[in-house]
Amino acid sequence: MSDPIFPPAHPFDFDAVRDPDDGDKLKEECGIFGVVGVTDAANFVALGLHALQHRGQEAGGIVSHHPDHGFNSARRFGYVRDNFTRASLMETLPGQLAIGHVRYSTAGSKGQTQIRDVQPFFGEFSMGGAAIAHNGNITNAEALRRELIERGSIFQSSSDSECIIHLMARSLQRDIPARMEDALRRVEGAFSVVAMTRTKLIGVRDPLGVRPLVLGKVGDGWCLSSETCALDIIGAEFVREIEPGEMVVITAEKGVESSRPFRPAKPRFCIFEHVYFSRPDSIIGGRSVYETRRQIGVELAREAPVDADLVCPVPDSGTPAAIGFAHESGIPYGMGIVRNQYMGRTFIEPTEQIRNMGVRLKLNVNRALIKGKRVILVDDSVVRGTTSRKIKEMILDAGAAEVHFRIASPPTAWPCFYGVDTPQREKLLAATMSEDEMCAHLGVDSLKFISLDGLYRAVGEAEGRDTKCPQYCDACFSGEYPVEPADMIEKGFQMKAAE
Amino acid sequence: MSDPIFPPAHPFDFDAVRDPDDGDKLKEECGIFGVVGVTDAANFVALGLHALQHRGQEAGGIVSHHPDHGFNSARRFGYVRDNFTRASLMETLPGQLAIGHVRYSTAGSKGQTQIRDVQPFFGEFSMGGAAIAHNGNITNAEALRRELIERGSIFQSSSDSECIIHLMARSLQRDIPARMEDALRRVEGAFSVVAMTRTKLIGVRDPLGVRPLVLGKVGDGWCLSSETCALDIIGAEFVREIEPGEMVVITAEKGVESSRPFRPAKPRFCIFEHVYFSRPDSIIGGRSVYETRRQIGVELAREAPVDADLVCPVPDSGTPAAIGFAHESGIPYGMGIVRNQYMGRTFIEPTEQIRNMGVRLKLNVNRALIKGKRVILVDDSVVRGTTSRKIKEMILDAGAAEVHFRIASPPTAWPCFYGVDTPQREKLLAATMSEDEMCAHLGVDSLKFISLDGLYRAVGEAEGRDTKCPQYCDACFSGEYPVEPADMIEKGFQMKAAE
Amino acid sequence: MSDPIFPPAHPFDFDAVRDPDDGDKLKEECGIFGVVGVTDAANFVALGLHALQHRGQEAGGIVSHHPDHGFNSARRFGYVRDNFTRASLMETLPGQLAIGHVRYSTAGSKGQTQIRDVQPFFGEFSMGGAAIAHNGNITNAEALRRELIERGSIFQSSSDSECIIHLMARSLQRDIPARMEDALRRVEGAFSVVAMTRTKLIGVRDPLGVRPLVLGKVGDGWCLSSETCALDIIGAEFVREIEPGEMVVITAEKGVESSRPFRPAKPRFCIFEHVYFSRPDSIIGGRSVYETRRQIGVELAREAPVDADLVCPVPDSGTPAAIGFAHESGIPYGMGIVRNQYMGRTFIEPTEQIRNMGVRLKLNVNRALIKGKRVILVDDSVVRGTTSRKIKEMILDAGAAEVHFRIASPPTAWPCFYGVDTPQREKLLAATMSEDEMCAHLGVDSLKFISLDGLYRAVGEAEGRDTKCPQYCDACFSGEYPVEPADMIEKGFQMKAAE
Amino acid sequence: MSDPIFPPAHPFDFDAVRDPDDGDKLKEECGIFGVVGVTDAANFVALGLHALQHRGQEAGGIVSHHPDHGFNSARRFGYVRDNFTRASLMETLPGQLAIGHVRYSTAGSKGQTQIRDVQPFFGEFSMGGAAIAHNGNITNAEALRRELIERGSIFQSSSDSECIIHLMARSLQRDIPARMEDALRRVEGAFSVVAMTRTKLIGVRDPLGVRPLVLGKVGDGWCLSSETCALDIIGAEFVREIEPGEMVVITAEKGVESSRPFRPAKPRFCIFEHVYFSRPDSIIGGRSVYETRRQIGVELAREAPVDADLVCPVPDSGTPAAIGFAHESGIPYGMGIVRNQYMGRTFIEPTEQIRNMGVRLKLNVNRALIKGKRVILVDDSVVRGTTSRKIKEMILDAGAAEVHFRIASPPTAWPCFYGVDTPQREKLLAATMSEDEMCAHLGVDSLKFISLDGLYRAVGEAEGRDTKCPQYCDACFSGEYPVEPADMIEKGFQMKAAE
Repeated sequence: MSDPIFPPAHPFDFDAVRDPDDGDKLKEECGIFGVVGVTDAANFVALGLHALQHRGQEAGGIVSHHPDHGFNSARRFGYVRDNFTRASLMETLPGQLAIGHVRYSTAGSKGQTQIRDVQPFFGEFSMGGAAIAHNGNITNAEALRRELIERGSIFQSSSDSECIIHLMARSLQRDIPARMEDALRRVEGAFSVVAMTRTKLIGVRDPLGVRPLVLGKVGDGWCLSSETCALDIIGAEFVREIEPGEMVVITAEKGVESSRPFRPAKPRFCIFEHVYFSRPDSIIGGRSVYETRRQIGVELAREAPVDADLVCPVPDSGTPAAIGFAHESGIPYGMGIVRNQYMGRTFIEPTEQIRNMGVRLKLNVNRALIKGKRVILVDDSVVRGTTSRKIKEMILDAGAAEVHFRIASPPTAWPCFYGVDTPQREKLLAATMSEDEMCAHLGVDSLKFISLDGLYRAVGEAEGRDTKCPQYCDACFSGEYPVEPADMIEKGFQMKAAE
Repeated sequence: MSDPIFPPAHPFDFDAVRDPDDGDKLKEECGIFGVVGVTDAANFVALGLHALQHRGQEAGGIVSHHPDHGFNSARRFGYVRDNFTRASLMETLPGQLAIGHVRYSTAGSKGQTQIRDVQPFFGEFSMGGAAIAHNGNITNAEALRRELIERGSIFQSSSDSECIIHLMARSLQRDIPARMEDALRRVEGAFSVVAMTRTKLIGVRDPLGVRPLVLGKVGDGWCLSSETCALDIIGAEFVREIEPGEMVVITAEKGVESSRPFRPAKPRFCIFEHVYFSRPDSIIGGRSVYETRRQIGVELAREAPVDADLVCPVPDSGTPAAIGFAHESGIPYGMGIVRNQYMGRTFIEPTEQIRNMGVRLKLNVNRALIKGKRVILVDDSVVRGTTSRKIKEMILDAGAAEVHFRIASPPTAWPCFYGVDTPQREKLLAATMSEDEMCAHLGVDSLKFISLDGLYRAVGEAEGRDTKCPQYCDACFSGEYPVEPADMIEKGFQMKAAE
Repeated sequence: MSDPIFPPAHPFDFDAVRDPDDGDKLKEECGIFGVVGVTDAANFVALGLHALQHRGQEAGGIVSHHPDHGFNSARRFGYVRDNFTRASLMETLPGQLAIGHVRYSTAGSKGQTQIRDVQPFFGEFSMGGAAIAHNGNITNAEALRRELIERGSIFQSSSDSECIIHLMARSLQRDIPARMEDALRRVEGAFSVVAMTRTKLIGVRDPLGVRPLVLGKVGDGWCLSSETCALDIIGAEFVREIEPGEMVVITAEKGVESSRPFRPAKPRFCIFEHVYFSRPDSIIGGRSVYETRRQIGVELAREAPVDADLVCPVPDSGTPAAIGFAHESGIPYGMGIVRNQYMGRTFIEPTEQIRNMGVRLKLNVNRALIKGKRVILVDDSVVRGTTSRKIKEMILDAGAAEVHFRIASPPTAWPCFYGVDTPQREKLLAATMSEDEMCAHLGVDSLKFISLDGLYRAVGEAEGRDTKCPQYCDACFSGEYPVEPADMIEKGFQMKAAE
Repeated sequence: MSDPIFPPAHPFDFDAVRDPDDGDKLKEECGIFGVVGVTDAANFVALGLHALQHRGQEAGGIVSHHPDHGFNSARRFGYVRDNFTRASLMETLPGQLAIGHVRYSTAGSKGQTQIRDVQPFFGEFSMGGAAIAHNGNITNAEALRRELIERGSIFQSSSDSECIIHLMARSLQRDIPARMEDALRRVEGAFSVVAMTRTKLIGVRDPLGVRPLVLGKVGDGWCLSSETCALDIIGAEFVREIEPGEMVVITAEKGVESSRPFRPAKPRFCIFEHVYFSRPDSIIGGRSVYETRRQIGVELAREAPVDADLVCPVPDSGTPAAIGFAHESGIPYGMGIVRNQYMGRTFIEPTEQIRNMGVRLKLNVNRALIKGKRVILVDDSVVRGTTSRKIKEMILDAGAAEVHFRIASPPTAWPCFYGVDTPQREKLLAATMSEDEMCAHLGVDSLKFISLDGLYRAVGEAEGRDTKCPQYCDACFSGEYPVEPADMIEKGFQMKAAE
């Protein structure tokens, strides 16, 4: 069966419009946030999601629960700030317990996201109902789905969260946390979950802890968030990270109860969260993301020095590494590329001319600064290389003497199956070209990526990568997938041959 | 568990605004339409729903199926003409098979309709998925729901249609029509259903045939509709009514296959469809609705004559009965009340003053015609009496010498549980007052309702009502419910004591 | 110079969508309303305009004045009910003095109406500013415009009202009423005006009184309206009509002061207001519009009787004449055609199929009633004949034995230049065909128009039309234009040759 | 007379929502752009305005001219990207000649901007009409307005541009450029103008050249722009600045013709354009804005050194000066404050909680970087000091050891009357406090502004400010107004006493 489409009710079709560099960045697909024990919990969730907007811009949803008004939900296309700040909407989400979700659609989907696929997913079942939202991917979701359908379940979305709800509905356990444990033991993959019943906020991280989830204290209540930056906005205090394989059940009365539903495993946190996904003002594993990125720049300057006049970040994500590179190399740092801050998701039914503008709508070269200089451009990653090429041309048009690219991540040669939007493998420049070939392809004077060991050093592993048992999930660079992507293999994906 | 709210994505909150006479009319809750075997089937459904808009104005939905694009669906708040005429939306609903639904929310619901409760309801299950829409009510829906949940099903809407889909998903039968038969044998109530699989259009009427459903032929294809007026708009030929207790499975190739999944029963069609719900240009049971209403006026003139100068309909539903009354009595017919045709559902966040205008926004007295005259006002029904009172005042303000109400239905003393929006029993004027008390309450010179026997005569039963075995469902007048309203009784509804 | 376009800011383009019978009705272009001496005057204007919506559906505007907040204005595309009921908008229009306008764009305009052409028109000049709105047409507007531009005025709209404001700005008189008198003496045409200064409500009717304007008393205040039906909705008492050639200046303190700025002339009120433009519940010249139309039906039955089974109105405007025809002829009256009440201006970007539906979207034949009958269809007018033809086909398809058209106005053979939207002369069926030719063209069994004398009798002129000095403006029937259409003649319009 | 309000037709009221630091920045009010001699000129204008969006975010407008379609215009509230990228809108603006404008409303206005005040302003007069847009302010506009009204002109907006059009309409000259010269000789103030007739693009800079205007070559055509960054986006080549007091008349055929309608004067370009208004990638007077700002940071580091651990810009405008300060001082540069990039103008009807969030919605402290450090915050200016105070608190909350403010402009002590939105003088912190008092008021460890001489050095005046005859307009710092603000003085503004 194919996939029903429920087109957005929005007056304008935003789908024709994408970021000019779409497909040329890996995109985190989701951010999640939940809170319990505070008045107007949904307002806190809205603020948290606003701070997590970089993790998903296409749509968002919030579910709240109030003893008198039950579960309430709102799902909307567009930015959090455009929907979940309206008093008239927020009034429909009463209660002291709420969870929320922002999402970005996957490149592989058949088109636009459907509002029914926007999380949190809610289902009424015998224990009184639950809502759930996740960040990541269940790698055996399709097999589970087939099995559930065979037994008489019906599906209404293509969301992995619906699998979890169905597994919970069919569990023989007596309370919802136990049912969720039952359900989680059936799923494989890389995911962080926030869920809620009528009284409990629940958080789960998969056994490897690939996706982030942190715990905060806000007033008399508690919150869960993908990143610490969302704690700051609501004035919450960072307590700790949820541990890989941990499930927490939180109520206003009893606080946080922890359990371990999964078989223990060695953690493999996503190293790309450090490189690009997370906000620089978040703290992951006790490390400042900003500082890690700055340190990547330092490592890059050591690994791949070059004689030049200016270190220039590709806005905005290259900035911390460029600061580090400039500091280590002693070459002046400058804003050689200026970003138009009036961008957004609202280029509506644009003219042909606008569509063809691409990155020039967003970035402009600071000609007076660039002219005659040997420029080092520091970017976070190279995915398809299309944007890198355009930026190089803009820099040369402005009169740069030389252009050197320094990339704050190793070559991205493998797709991610753990909740990140990556192009198919053949579209990844590094899957088909060596560093030198890429340099020639981009037409720059030099191109250097940080080494995998250099990246590990920057995140604090002084010895670099433990090749036997890597400390992080780095499948996008190494092709070594810590969880078998079962659904994808069934669809024909070729794993890297064992060496 | 309480009921999640998914507020409409509409920029304006139309829900604060209701027809000035809201709650003072019985409201049909739904209209259904389906078609198979024509190009761009969804367009036909849109036109059919436009013609059925009087059966439900709050929201509408269409599901279509195309071999290459699978099931597609669109659900929208608002009129059909405001949504399902847009080329950009209709293009997303390809295929030669489609069903649709218009709905009005029930008075008992906790507030606004939720988009997830808008039909057709779609579910993917092991036979490949099905979509379903119904008009009417399943009277044991809550018991079924509890049972299904107990067995591990999850519910996402409060729609009765979801029960049917779940029952189908759990059936052990091998094909969808057989699964639907399985499901239908579990449900009680008064309902007509249109459903679709990837290749089949299905229609069902409950054993008593309380709600209407007709079959039409359009080009090489077939259609199902709540009323014949929707056949006219697409140029379809009326074939026959689906019979009470009949299920038809229609494909473009094999045409119509009929079966009888239910235990046989004596039909009890809703008599109020003749009085008010159906459009006057529809034909029910071989009788013109318009002619029946005109005949009600004739009966009324015989049963309750009055010496007066003018017969005046309360627009628009009282018109045919007023024509009949005038014809039979010989008293001139005239438009004593004029309707503003620029009404609609879009009084947005209205000012206090607008809210207080009520029926005066919609109706204006034709002062020159009314002045000094003894006026007979013919209306279709009296529910709460609020509008009747306001109209009486307007007529007297305009200088009428006398005001006589003649009502084209018997006193509405009992709520309907078969898919009609009725106020709670205590709000029904006729539940607590005799005809004379109502006359005094409304402050008119006389008030007469047609007798139940007179109504039966007008619909063609020359002998009147068969009190042993009534030919129609007339529970709203008689309190005799042909199907036990199990869910309502569980909630405390008191049936009429046996006599 | 060509005409600047300021497209509406509305998210949807309503302009592609017109009434299915567009161009086949004469359309009144404007309704005007003003009030002084009541709290929240703009709310009263909004209600008045809602009651006058039949006079113009494309756009509306309101200007109010408050001593502390000055002049405020809002102009919107769409229905009054969709704009001027919003509390948030109405709050921006404070004060005890306000005027408003609804308009319909002319067929001859180069495309969509421009928001800057929506009245009331406001200008600040030396006496403190004034706002003005008119119904009708200034026949020498273009000549005036050229003259004013030559002297240094700039124009921002194509509205005739702007001419009047400029003439006022250049007047040497000391107060605004005197300046308006100055201005009015320069303009020719057929127009009713409501205007306002900071303290005064002003009303004017042209010397012939072609367009209507009535005075009402509401509480301690006063109002002016195109029709009496708008007095009813706000509970105002009808005082009198403004007389042809009269100007009234109204303040809360001094009440109504009357003057006569124009040279006296014999009145020539528009007879088509009786036939079609005005609402049936309005009273014009002491006569009920409904009663006049009913009387037209009586005259028609006398002039053009026919042996038939059913008198059937073409909804909705043919209803009163059909009632009269049925009454006089003794042939039963019936609703042979049923109107879908869920029409409106919001068919948005409709599909091809919808566009081709035409009148079938709006009207459906009551097949059971029509079948086998000889039917008399009573319509208000025949303009291009396109709708008449489609209706005839629908009636025959439904099995009528004969179709006879009876038209409640004489043949429309000449365009109106006094504020009514008429097709060019060559598009008027009656401009090129005799009654018999039209009958053959429409393919009906008979076609009869009321005679011009019959129409005059129906409006109360027992002797019929005074051919020397007609009592009404009937240029659309007779080609005798009481005011020379100077601008149109300059553009090449050929007047009827003197006989 | 007061000011009529024409509220925006937008479905949502954006006006309740402002940038959290509103009123705490000086705001450039306008950006202008024009082009002639290219196909689809309006598209070029749209792109140019997008690049100039930082000069005005509230509304924008474009007028184009096409020989067959005349003048066409569109004015919209909101961002350029949200309006002037729509194919359906841009198609209504055909032709090879177009001008456009973006604007920000002035703090002093009585509320929301009115669509009729959105430029370009168009008027039809005897030479065929002209459209005009300006950046800046006519200081004798009110006097001119009174005079024009006295002579019979009417005004429809409060825009200064309307004065110019009226003066042109009344000129006795024979061609439009000559009429514009006539008009310009009557106006005083600081303004740059782009205007257009049916064939000519016109640009003017006031005699002192306070506001910028540059000339570019694009293909076979020419363009005028407030800043060079808008030339880059359309691939235009920078030709030269329009000179102070120069008027250029440009046609596709004859190219650029220059004249000097004003009495010669010594230029006084706005120095604040260098400090804040212009984009860093623009070039003014041959100097890179970015480089000037970086140099301001260098000067600041020399004038007001401080022993600290981190130089941190207040995003985004403080960045170049912070880079310069860090470079000169040798103190590391870091992103201590992170900006949420998903801000915008669309916080709609926000909840109370959102309204109270203020700057925390937009900025978050990079806690790991700040903790324990002595931080130098570099900002562009201090206006009311409200944001500075909040940022200081956020920095201290994050654990900074010391907070030092370094401001890249001298104390802003006087309002600007030349087209910049400044609070009233008493709201300016520097108007009532000394530097030390401000330091105490803000509660920081130190606060230093760059000196006026230091600023002049940074813009390239090695000798600093020429106090006899300052090289720039620096009235906001010095209180020395190069053009007498006549209208403001009439309203009671007190000039600085002569020393």
